[in-house]
Amino acid sequence: MTIKKICILGAGTLGSRIALQSAISGFTVTVYDIHQKSLDFSQRTMEKIVKQLAKSGQISETEISAIFSRIKFTLDAKEAVADADLINESVTEEIEIKKKVWKQFGEIAPEKTWFTTNTSYLLPSMFAEESGRPAKFCAFHFHDVFYSRVVDIMPHPGTDPVMIPMLEELGRKLNQVPVLVKKENPGYIFNTMLMALIGAAGKLLTREVGSIEDIDKSWMVNFHMAMGPFGILDSIGLDTAWHVTHKLPDAASQAFAALLKTYIDEGKLGEKSGKGFYSYPNPAYRNPDFIR
Amino acid sequence: MTIKKICILGAGTLGSRIALQSAISGFTVTVYDIHQKSLDFSQRTMEKIVKQLAKSGQISETEISAIFSRIKFTLDAKEAVADADLINESVTEEIEIKKKVWKQFGEIAPEKTWFTTNTSYLLPSMFAEESGRPAKFCAFHFHDVFYSRVVDIMPHPGTDPVMIPMLEELGRKLNQVPVLVKKENPGYIFNTMLMALIGAAGKLLTREVGSIEDIDKSWMVNFHMAMGPFGILDSIGLDTAWHVTHKLPDAASQAFAALLKTYIDEGKLGEKSGKGFYSYPNPAYRNPDFIR
Repeated sequence: MTIKKICILGAGTLGSRIALQSAISGFTVTVYDIHQKSLDFSQRTMEKIVKQLAKSGQISETEISAIFSRIKFTLDAKEAVADADLINESVTEEIEIKKKVWKQFGEIAPEKTWFTTNTSYLLPSMFAEESGRPAKFCAFHFHDVFYSRVVDIMPHPGTDPVMIPMLEELGRKLNQVPVLVKKENPGYIFNTMLMALIGAAGKLLTREVGSIEDIDKSWMVNFHMAMGPFGILDSIGLDTAWHVTHKLPDAASQAFAALLKTYIDEGKLGEKSGKGFYSYPNPAYRNPDFIR
Repeated sequence: MTIKKICILGAGTLGSRIALQSAISGFTVTVYDIHQKSLDFSQRTMEKIVKQLAKSGQISETEISAIFSRIKFTLDAKEAVADADLINESVTEEIEIKKKVWKQFGEIAPEKTWFTTNTSYLLPSMFAEESGRPAKFCAFHFHDVFYSRVVDIMPHPGTDPVMIPMLEELGRKLNQVPVLVKKENPGYIFNTMLMALIGAAGKLLTREVGSIEDIDKSWMVNFHMAMGPFGILDSIGLDTAWHVTHKLPDAASQAFAALLKTYIDEGKLGEKSGKGFYSYPNPAYRNPDFIR
């Protein structure tokens, strides 16, 4: 079961990054989406990243054309999956969409194809059956591929255990650090811890124990990190954080979700909208005077 | 109310570090303890740190004798507090001991003396009254002074607000980043967040979602940090972590406290005992191969 050809479903930010790293690692890749403009975005995204990687010496200029020669963009599902050894799906994070996509690809994929989903907060068991081959189905979840190089391997109860060493090996070939999530857990391992940290920071803020700046300073100075929890929230997106937080039943999460909502309603979504807890492109926490 | 002379109560690890930084910053310092061997330990601790600071260029060799000339070690309470502008107390973290010490020093301290406590998890309101001058009483909490340079300023409801800017200024003079904890909160700001992170890691472990190593890898690789939560726990001490965790009422904390207890009962307290979640002096997470 050597993997040679990888099919990426969904040409968004993460799908594009996974596809690019796969091609850099020598795999043949097809990138499938239902919108031509998504495929165009994907290609531009990859070109930008490749330039940065060449600039920082992680790849050489001479490799670039060979890397792109291994990537095919397509709107044709059958062409995308033809001869694929493995699918990694990064489509919209909605369960009905995931179910529909997996039903479609379960029907047209070659028998040999292994199925993996890159879902962030859903669980593979929620749509493994729809694929028609739940035993060949596992979560294989990337963070941002190039800076945060963790890949989570999270089987559902019906996953064939042979997938685990196979995905560990594939993860390493893709320059990632594979981590085994032994049981289904929303948010895998890292996001579970990150949300606990962010929840504690949110509680300190809504209870008026500390200011945004003092909470961030405490984290940054003690751990010598470039950002604190509110800087991290700005980079995740306040809407994304609200999406997770408002579903948690405890009073502290509800209070923090309500606070996030006031920011979101003012269009402050974080770094991507220019404003969140801080203002971009020059947030206060990047000023060396912030920590003094 | 310019601070010139600082009296440190309790010559343990943290008291010694605060005293040393105070002398480096030009303050006159007395270090008080009830045991001569603690004062001897304190002096040796300071000599070690000063050597490291000189080696790394943070102070010059020629300053060393002047720094030590500003520090006096004493078993005599009246001598310790004579003419002191400020007391910072780092005695044993037990409420009855804190009460007793503050009653004693409230009686013998000059009228001008400001009172600060370096308590880790207790609250200043629990023993401010015993000092006889609660309005001049505030928490002023250091982390490790030289590497983690946050100092928390946490008033209790009766603290005179003039103490806040005064302690902010003093904190900066002591080369710390002052952070205001606007309301009494056990664990201030940083430890509240750290315990949330550690609690989430503990829950992932006791629920068997991930291994110790995979949980730590997830944190280290995503945040480019030298340690994950279990490495951090080893450096804090499993006994210290158990002390906080076993008092939390929720089932996840109780399960993790029970797990910590099995380590403690085997003498595995973390880095200080040579074993904890990892083995020292060469824990697996410091091996470059750990992250691959």
